[in-house]
Amino acid sequence: MGLSSVKRPKQQTKALLRRVVGAYAAREPRLGPERWGLEVRGNELLLEGNSLHRLEQEYGSPLQVVAAQKLRSNARTFLTPPEAGSSACEVYYSYKTNPVPGVLRFLHEMGVGAEVISHYEFWLARKLGVAPERIVYNGPAKSDESIREAVRLGIQTLNLNHQEEIARVARIAQEEQKKLRVGVRISVGQGWEAQFGSPIARGQALAAFREAVQAPWLDVVGLHAHRGGMILSEAELTAFVDAVLDFVATLRSELGLSPQVLNFGGSLGTPTVKPLSPLDQRLNRTLHRDLSAPDPDAALSIERYVALLSKLVRARYATFGAPLPRIFLEPGRSLTGNAQLLLTSVLSIKRSDGDAYAIMDAGINHAESVRSEYHQVLAANHWGEPADQTYTVVGPICSPGDTLYRAVRLPRLEPGDTLAIMDSGAYFVPFSTSFSFPRPAIVMTDGGDVSSLRRRETFDDIVCCDQLRAEGS
Amino acid sequence: MGLSSVKRPKQQTKALLRRVVGAYAAREPRLGPERWGLEVRGNELLLEGNSLHRLEQEYGSPLQVVAAQKLRSNARTFLTPPEAGSSACEVYYSYKTNPVPGVLRFLHEMGVGAEVISHYEFWLARKLGVAPERIVYNGPAKSDESIREAVRLGIQTLNLNHQEEIARVARIAQEEQKKLRVGVRISVGQGWEAQFGSPIARGQALAAFREAVQAPWLDVVGLHAHRGGMILSEAELTAFVDAVLDFVATLRSELGLSPQVLNFGGSLGTPTVKPLSPLDQRLNRTLHRDLSAPDPDAALSIERYVALLSKLVRARYATFGAPLPRIFLEPGRSLTGNAQLLLTSVLSIKRSDGDAYAIMDAGINHAESVRSEYHQVLAANHWGEPADQTYTVVGPICSPGDTLYRAVRLPRLEPGDTLAIMDSGAYFVPFSTSFSFPRPAIVMTDGGDVSSLRRRETFDDIVCCDQLRAEGS
Repeated sequence: MGLSSVKRPKQQTKALLRRVVGAYAAREPRLGPERWGLEVRGNELLLEGNSLHRLEQEYGSPLQVVAAQKLRSNARTFLTPPEAGSSACEVYYSYKTNPVPGVLRFLHEMGVGAEVISHYEFWLARKLGVAPERIVYNGPAKSDESIREAVRLGIQTLNLNHQEEIARVARIAQEEQKKLRVGVRISVGQGWEAQFGSPIARGQALAAFREAVQAPWLDVVGLHAHRGGMILSEAELTAFVDAVLDFVATLRSELGLSPQVLNFGGSLGTPTVKPLSPLDQRLNRTLHRDLSAPDPDAALSIERYVALLSKLVRARYATFGAPLPRIFLEPGRSLTGNAQLLLTSVLSIKRSDGDAYAIMDAGINHAESVRSEYHQVLAANHWGEPADQTYTVVGPICSPGDTLYRAVRLPRLEPGDTLAIMDSGAYFVPFSTSFSFPRPAIVMTDGGDVSSLRRRETFDDIVCCDQLRAEGS
Repeated sequence: MGLSSVKRPKQQTKALLRRVVGAYAAREPRLGPERWGLEVRGNELLLEGNSLHRLEQEYGSPLQVVAAQKLRSNARTFLTPPEAGSSACEVYYSYKTNPVPGVLRFLHEMGVGAEVISHYEFWLARKLGVAPERIVYNGPAKSDESIREAVRLGIQTLNLNHQEEIARVARIAQEEQKKLRVGVRISVGQGWEAQFGSPIARGQALAAFREAVQAPWLDVVGLHAHRGGMILSEAELTAFVDAVLDFVATLRSELGLSPQVLNFGGSLGTPTVKPLSPLDQRLNRTLHRDLSAPDPDAALSIERYVALLSKLVRARYATFGAPLPRIFLEPGRSLTGNAQLLLTSVLSIKRSDGDAYAIMDAGINHAESVRSEYHQVLAANHWGEPADQTYTVVGPICSPGDTLYRAVRLPRLEPGDTLAIMDSGAYFVPFSTSFSFPRPAIVMTDGGDVSSLRRRETFDDIVCCDQLRAEGS
């Protein structure tokens, strides 16, 4: 055809290595559907008895599906007293992780409170009927207006993120002539620091407590420490909790202060999710080596997390000879992450030069987290067929950045087929955009029942804030 | 206070190096406000006579501001014939870059058409009154329904992204018994490939043309080649255009086909924006060295881009001895990027251990591009004051990823102060999310006139697709 058909040597080497890697690679995903309680019927995957492929056809694609049974069991585990006779931890769900009203209501009905980080989330909690004493307000970006509302309503606790907030919150409480229950957020030198919390290093956290205690309109009831990142092991949890408890000892000895509430934040990981390493991503991109899956059996479970955390607190308080504090937890991804999945349809297959691209109707516009975390993908209506095709799975927005999987082995796909991207219950929804395509509907399965939590965004919704009339300018 | 006050050696070294770097650093931003035609009155920056700080106070913060005069001049430059007696290029604005109806309408009124990549964008163009013959439909993710609509309406051109699309589009045109004007998208081995276009390598693009030409219901009028990335120099543009024209020569000799339309896509950069290099980012993060600004005077201007591109086409067609084709351009960032800026307020300053964090009411939720591109930030109400403070500028969402600038020198800031993040007219709006905070309002300044293009998202808007009633489940 007048054009060279000789591949460049680098490409040839890459192609050869990819074949070698392919020959040794696992043919089955490391994390099979049983990990999420999915059943198999023929070549279809079922969630609580519902065919995923049919759900997508019925409710439209892409589609977020919440698994009520998993959500219920996660919440129950968090809310159960870690041992007979002990108090349960108090659980405040991190709204920002998955701010779907239907999911939030479900959790609230089970006894979970609201952890909010903005005026909007605060408003939403109230709109959902959450009592003020079941709302914890965190974060570095509280507006004066929202602080005033927290004072007026008398919320459970407002955690002072950093030193500058103390005088501001105290002033507003004074203006309202109403005491506010506050905590002081500290950072212990593990996980997040930067804009979050007063560091214990060089006495900064202690100074923040001292200032807060002296403010007459602040009732300092709590200590708040959210580690950030993902806590995946007992060792990481122990190191974090011990550092917090060391600081409690400092508070007791230096200020004679023993907080009524110890709030350990969230950060417990989802067993089937882990951050992708740059090396892993590179080997996947260049040699098509499978991304390495997390080992869910080695991960810290909710049950073990709650038990170990409680045990560490009880043991330390025994040495203090002090009554036990209330323990607050603010789980996000560990509570909802694996109770949700994203269904997306194959729009088209592009084959070119030995490479195959599966062009999906959802990409980073609805599944941003897949760029940096391991999320198992399952062929929802081709289960059990040999996974002998390597696809680059891309989304619909016109950008090369819209790539979900550089190279993933799947059965042969055709337009209309359904992929299930697992563990979509953390950070998929809040990071979703209306980039050229509307945001998906959300349904909940509860055994045989399927209910709509959120309808798909319409074209009109996307421009609901705009002046569309031709006469305006 | 019972805690060590000794810094670790690594921290000490870093602190020392940061001081050295700071002493040698420029005290003025490399790109001053005059680059965008901003004026200075006292210590305030003015856009078309309007104080940015006051605009933000009046219309709420954060706020997107469109500069009509700049937008008009960019559009005029694109639409002006490159030399006396020559035809102007036909311009189709890339909707996905900045899908703000008020901006789109402004461009359409000047004679710019619509380049759309989804059913939603297609719908929006029609809603804005764009005639079908002024709509070009691109991208790898066209739904059957939207293709059918394109056939029925008779749009300007639908560009076939990849081989699989040819038969599908041909089938739909046949079903409708109506011929469709199509182009074939090619990739020339520069810039984007992957899911985009049929590669010229190994005859794939030629095979796609051959197949399309044989389809009775497709009228193959165009060749489409969108390079992707940023074209920043004459050399890059020349290499790209030459490669496309080489392929036109192949089409002529192999198929006897001379496309009526050559569509060169977009990708021209904005002179004041460039991709950040990993080294630059690293030195900024660790040593607080200023990010290196682009040199706008070295950048390829719109005028020069259009002139050079037209000249290359004319020269090549002279060698063909063929009449000139229509030239289509699909600019995105070069047309709107520098005609818009984002205003954001300081909510709080956190000082800790010598570091200062400016906590803003906008972060990556509204300015995602700042993570990977150089965007000048200007202190809108402290202009001319010594930029002797180093801030880490962070957004409001509770994530360490919500960092706009790791280290940037600015005048001393206080809550309520305004920062202007420049060149927000490309990819800020489509990548914006409702992550814990509503999306901002958009206004347009046109000389003394300020008009609202989009109101701020309300809390109710964010949950407009949800069932909020307590009785539902």
